[in-house]
Amino acid sequence: MLKKKICVVVTARPSYSRIKTALTAIKNHPKLELQLVVAGSALLGRYGNAVDFIENDGFTVDEKVFMVLEGENPTAMAKTTGLGVMELSNVFYKLNPDAVVTIADRFETIATSIAAAYQNIPLIHIQGGEVTGNIDEKVRHANTKLADVHLVASEEAKERVIKLGENPDMVVNTGCPSIDLAKEIAESPNLDFDPIEKYGGVGESINWKDGYLVVMQHPVTTEYKQAKVDVTTTLKAIDELNIPTFWFWPNVDAGSDGTSSGIRTYREIHQPKNIHFFKNMEPNDFLRLLKNSKCLIGNSSVGIRECAYLGVPVVNIGTRQNRRERGKNVIDVMYEKDAIKDAVKNRIDSEIIVSEHIYGDGEAGKRIAEVLASIQLHFHKTITY
Amino acid sequence: MLKKKICVVVTARPSYSRIKTALTAIKNHPKLELQLVVAGSALLGRYGNAVDFIENDGFTVDEKVFMVLEGENPTAMAKTTGLGVMELSNVFYKLNPDAVVTIADRFETIATSIAAAYQNIPLIHIQGGEVTGNIDEKVRHANTKLADVHLVASEEAKERVIKLGENPDMVVNTGCPSIDLAKEIAESPNLDFDPIEKYGGVGESINWKDGYLVVMQHPVTTEYKQAKVDVTTTLKAIDELNIPTFWFWPNVDAGSDGTSSGIRTYREIHQPKNIHFFKNMEPNDFLRLLKNSKCLIGNSSVGIRECAYLGVPVVNIGTRQNRRERGKNVIDVMYEKDAIKDAVKNRIDSEIIVSEHIYGDGEAGKRIAEVLASIQLHFHKTITY
Amino acid sequence: MLKKKICVVVTARPSYSRIKTALTAIKNHPKLELQLVVAGSALLGRYGNAVDFIENDGFTVDEKVFMVLEGENPTAMAKTTGLGVMELSNVFYKLNPDAVVTIADRFETIATSIAAAYQNIPLIHIQGGEVTGNIDEKVRHANTKLADVHLVASEEAKERVIKLGENPDMVVNTGCPSIDLAKEIAESPNLDFDPIEKYGGVGESINWKDGYLVVMQHPVTTEYKQAKVDVTTTLKAIDELNIPTFWFWPNVDAGSDGTSSGIRTYREIHQPKNIHFFKNMEPNDFLRLLKNSKCLIGNSSVGIRECAYLGVPVVNIGTRQNRRERGKNVIDVMYEKDAIKDAVKNRIDSEIIVSEHIYGDGEAGKRIAEVLASIQLHFHKTITY
Amino acid sequence: MLKKKICVVVTARPSYSRIKTALTAIKNHPKLELQLVVAGSALLGRYGNAVDFIENDGFTVDEKVFMVLEGENPTAMAKTTGLGVMELSNVFYKLNPDAVVTIADRFETIATSIAAAYQNIPLIHIQGGEVTGNIDEKVRHANTKLADVHLVASEEAKERVIKLGENPDMVVNTGCPSIDLAKEIAESPNLDFDPIEKYGGVGESINWKDGYLVVMQHPVTTEYKQAKVDVTTTLKAIDELNIPTFWFWPNVDAGSDGTSSGIRTYREIHQPKNIHFFKNMEPNDFLRLLKNSKCLIGNSSVGIRECAYLGVPVVNIGTRQNRRERGKNVIDVMYEKDAIKDAVKNRIDSEIIVSEHIYGDGEAGKRIAEVLASIQLHFHKTITY
Repeated sequence: MLKKKICVVVTARPSYSRIKTALTAIKNHPKLELQLVVAGSALLGRYGNAVDFIENDGFTVDEKVFMVLEGENPTAMAKTTGLGVMELSNVFYKLNPDAVVTIADRFETIATSIAAAYQNIPLIHIQGGEVTGNIDEKVRHANTKLADVHLVASEEAKERVIKLGENPDMVVNTGCPSIDLAKEIAESPNLDFDPIEKYGGVGESINWKDGYLVVMQHPVTTEYKQAKVDVTTTLKAIDELNIPTFWFWPNVDAGSDGTSSGIRTYREIHQPKNIHFFKNMEPNDFLRLLKNSKCLIGNSSVGIRECAYLGVPVVNIGTRQNRRERGKNVIDVMYEKDAIKDAVKNRIDSEIIVSEHIYGDGEAGKRIAEVLASIQLHFHKTITY
Repeated sequence: MLKKKICVVVTARPSYSRIKTALTAIKNHPKLELQLVVAGSALLGRYGNAVDFIENDGFTVDEKVFMVLEGENPTAMAKTTGLGVMELSNVFYKLNPDAVVTIADRFETIATSIAAAYQNIPLIHIQGGEVTGNIDEKVRHANTKLADVHLVASEEAKERVIKLGENPDMVVNTGCPSIDLAKEIAESPNLDFDPIEKYGGVGESINWKDGYLVVMQHPVTTEYKQAKVDVTTTLKAIDELNIPTFWFWPNVDAGSDGTSSGIRTYREIHQPKNIHFFKNMEPNDFLRLLKNSKCLIGNSSVGIRECAYLGVPVVNIGTRQNRRERGKNVIDVMYEKDAIKDAVKNRIDSEIIVSEHIYGDGEAGKRIAEVLASIQLHFHKTITY
Repeated sequence: MLKKKICVVVTARPSYSRIKTALTAIKNHPKLELQLVVAGSALLGRYGNAVDFIENDGFTVDEKVFMVLEGENPTAMAKTTGLGVMELSNVFYKLNPDAVVTIADRFETIATSIAAAYQNIPLIHIQGGEVTGNIDEKVRHANTKLADVHLVASEEAKERVIKLGENPDMVVNTGCPSIDLAKEIAESPNLDFDPIEKYGGVGESINWKDGYLVVMQHPVTTEYKQAKVDVTTTLKAIDELNIPTFWFWPNVDAGSDGTSSGIRTYREIHQPKNIHFFKNMEPNDFLRLLKNSKCLIGNSSVGIRECAYLGVPVVNIGTRQNRRERGKNVIDVMYEKDAIKDAVKNRIDSEIIVSEHIYGDGEAGKRIAEVLASIQLHFHKTITY
Repeated sequence: MLKKKICVVVTARPSYSRIKTALTAIKNHPKLELQLVVAGSALLGRYGNAVDFIENDGFTVDEKVFMVLEGENPTAMAKTTGLGVMELSNVFYKLNPDAVVTIADRFETIATSIAAAYQNIPLIHIQGGEVTGNIDEKVRHANTKLADVHLVASEEAKERVIKLGENPDMVVNTGCPSIDLAKEIAESPNLDFDPIEKYGGVGESINWKDGYLVVMQHPVTTEYKQAKVDVTTTLKAIDELNIPTFWFWPNVDAGSDGTSSGIRTYREIHQPKNIHFFKNMEPNDFLRLLKNSKCLIGNSSVGIRECAYLGVPVVNIGTRQNRRERGKNVIDVMYEKDAIKDAVKNRIDSEIIVSEHIYGDGEAGKRIAEVLASIQLHFHKTITY
């Protein structure tokens, strides 16, 4: 029997975590053949070299696509996307897949969508239908309108995609594969490694064994000039709290240099004694680190998604996760030093937080592979109203 | 007072007809400054050199963007779009407009949308919310999700854009500027020029004075290999009808070479005595030619839109205009020689056809300029549900 | 034993003829592995679909690279080259060859050279060291300066490459593979097919059996606006001579549309009775057609190279072959109707023309493969003075 | 009178120093109009934001071209060049200059050359004819073969360009504009600023007032994996010498991340007490810093060129400046810690070094403008032999 060729494009470190268990399930499914394309910042050392983790996890990378243009402005982000369309068009022409999978809503994911849709290849969109209120939202819903099949992560997302005029038969709530990883961690949650010993990083060699915070703050793409100011506010709050903290470097975006530069400047001047910085961490280790932390601070979607499942307290700062469905584990604050400090204290003192299954029950990867194997694929659709 | 800079991107000959009166109204509006970008096939001789008409009409072209990649497959179409994103990103970075206008749903229009949206420039989409059922539909609705303001051409379109989750305050039914041209023609409909004398063209020097047909048939992008077969069917039908006919060359698309090649082959072998071929015609002259014709045959949207207003009979072939709102002037047939012949005969014998205002009342251009001058522009939005 | 991977990039129909026997010899050599990349106009129907001939000849194409940008100006030519650098960089990164072969001097060949040289892959340049006096010359000698090994086609070329500061050990006169094909034809010269029956083409069905001319005229890239005027002059001369003639369409270049348009216009108006037009022909058939013709007219390098070996009379028009070494078979004229006519008459009446081995003895393909197999490859060099 | 439009493309910080006085002279010349394009790493913060210095010096930048692709491998370098060809083709199409100036031999300079030559714009190459023995040499001599006029920096360079087959009338030894800046400094050499106070930088606040070293070490592009090892060797040598040292960050190149990463790692682990690091410095301040230093160490061409004029001792490490003409001020060593240390000690103890005018007498800028104003420009040439 001929296997269906499923081409998945991973363009960034966080996208890999959101698709990993699905990649495994596709690879192992008797009716499917996995074609894996790694592109964009997932190939770059500055952004954590996701490609190394991918290959270490035993996946074969069929194509590597260098497409990130340097520059501290949104023009570079737009041009990176254009270049991505050109390069991925070549890749799909060559790999000739039966379907292409695009993940979520980062700016460059629309390159995958266009390259597939314009070449009449059925397009599967993972994690459509969510709502955040920034540039990601334009990209995410545009991906929905270019896609033929929608594998969403929550019931609310499913309803929204259907409201967008998509055929309900083509919209399936599989849950988010990132929760699959969280499930594994929740089943055996001990912190079985020393983060500094294993990952190095820079900054003080903090004493984390009696409890620690985790910070992950990305620039907000439509307000990129603010990035440096914003990260400095959070740095001050954490510095003053003086609790041992692991801080993660941001991933690529217009303005990531603002955030990075903010961090570098602050370190040079203030040399905060309680913060250790990491560039990246294997997804499993990262979740385990979160599971054992007192609180996650920042604006990462991990706080909204995985931490809901894991029952980890979260202080979510700013507008980046605006309007995303969230659980009781999250407190929202703006970029104000004292508000951040108060919220962290509140979260640390809160009672035990219960796991919520908003973004899936931990079986998303297998469910995605199953849908891909059984669904009738088309590249032609029409709006339902 | 500082004028709002409105940057309009015209990428093809037919798009120019659909925006011309709006360009004039923007140029003449005291609160607006027009920045005109001509790109893609609008710059190419093979597709009618729209740029010459634009400059002859008195518009100054601020930037010319060469971006069409050669090739007889959809890969070239996709890569053209990617290149368009890169080039238009540069152009908007340099022109620094207050808003960018993208027109309708051709594949390359999403390049305009991405280049503007990713650089945080408010994006105006003209003619969203319609429904056709081909690749154009994916592009059109994706444009809607990337755009901040929607200037639509019919009430049905307005409702559809709002259903897509757009803020109703940002959706205005202006009507289609192409109808503005039709209105001018309807007010003084005489055919005041000799088409062959004025435009040359190739093929027999037909006697058109006692009545003639017009044919305009484009390849259907998701079925491009069929292009040659389809055009040959229509050629046979028209050849057998033996009524004097003006036939227009298709515009650029994957497969236009299929259509073009079909026409060339048929001419070489059959030398049809009743058909004269044109590459292009000034929009006004074209509408006047239609207004005085017995019937328009093919799959052009002109048959659905302008001809409804003009009251010209239309035989619409195939799926290209699927689900578009249409008037009583249109008969739909598939690509079958005898069906086409019968439909043409039926249309020629039909009683007088009444003008219908489905796509506007002839004042769209001015209305678009007025909205652009008065609306508060944003580049940040969120879905309404 | 590990075979040396030799990656050859063919970007146009004429380049294929110039490398074909070398491709065969590389493919069959026990120490070499052929990686074949077909790019640019060699993939396009408008320019003769060289890729079909290549595949029909039994070669496997490893990568196809669509890179030709449409446009009637030199800007498109430059951008095509830039796109070629980007695309071929990807291709070489993926194929990871031990050496890359770039052929001659068309504008896009420098894309191959840059993509290889900048990735530290040893670069072999075929047919450097010649001299013509147009834009090709800039490209050809720049290719020489980027290349590590030079396989040239004549003794004069060898001396010139050494004068350019290249290490004499890295310059080998192999002769030109195009002459290998000519040798085969010369050994069994009968015209064993009916050109019109086999290749179709357009125009009158001329009576060629009692002798015929062949015309092949390309636009001269640095004077592209002249292309239409020039081709019309030649058309008039041939029309007036009224000898049966096979005329070949030009290959892609800025201005090829000027030449094509000149041909189309002339045909439409004058309908010359003695000319039949072809888009392309298999190289062997083309050489056989030449061998049996009364004279070749135009500005093709085939007249200078293959026809010297074949002993075919040539009227070479204009500056395109300026300063190229030539044999006694050639008369040079400028674009003047009467001069062309007189030269053709002179050539037809000339006595038998002797074969000259200026560009090789017919064993170039094997010699090229042998050098590639035995030479020590480097990507690092320094000028000799 | 119509001024000749001279378009100069600056793609990196060091290129700016090499052209600055010529830019001023062109700007002020009554017969010339300066069109200034800033591109590539000259626009990027990571590489010193040369564009800010350019604008602060009073130049108007006509076009900014973002073209640097991220990636730690030579593929990114090649693709950056391809993108540069595309972007600069647009820029020259729009600016329509009478001549384009490309500077020296960095990998991306060939993009300028191709974009100009292929659009039939006369190309001026500055600083051709030198010899170094790395990838730069391929680029430099290829630029020569694409260029129409050659403004070289030494008599040896002039002879070499003529040997390359260029018309001697089109080769002028103007000297190098970088020496013009050196002349100004030599005329008033006092160190009139505090480097750390003015430029910040990172690392120890060294006591430099009693004498200091300067280090500038770039990765060698054809050996980029060695970059980290090499820079570590130099760091160890300087660390052990324990003389106050100003160290400059490298500019962009494949492998600059190797060098940068080597520096970061060394700092993190060894925290050298005698080294202060700068990202960049205004050219004048940098030369003044050199003039007052005990010795320059590394592989920068500044050591070979400006330091010869300034009479500053230099320890030149490795192969990067191989075969470049040099003065008595230079000692060459390989990447061996003790050899570097010994050479520095030797240089510090050497007697006074005499200024040598190998690369010009300090009037190059004016001479370049004068040649551009008076020379007859062509875009058509042929090799002289």
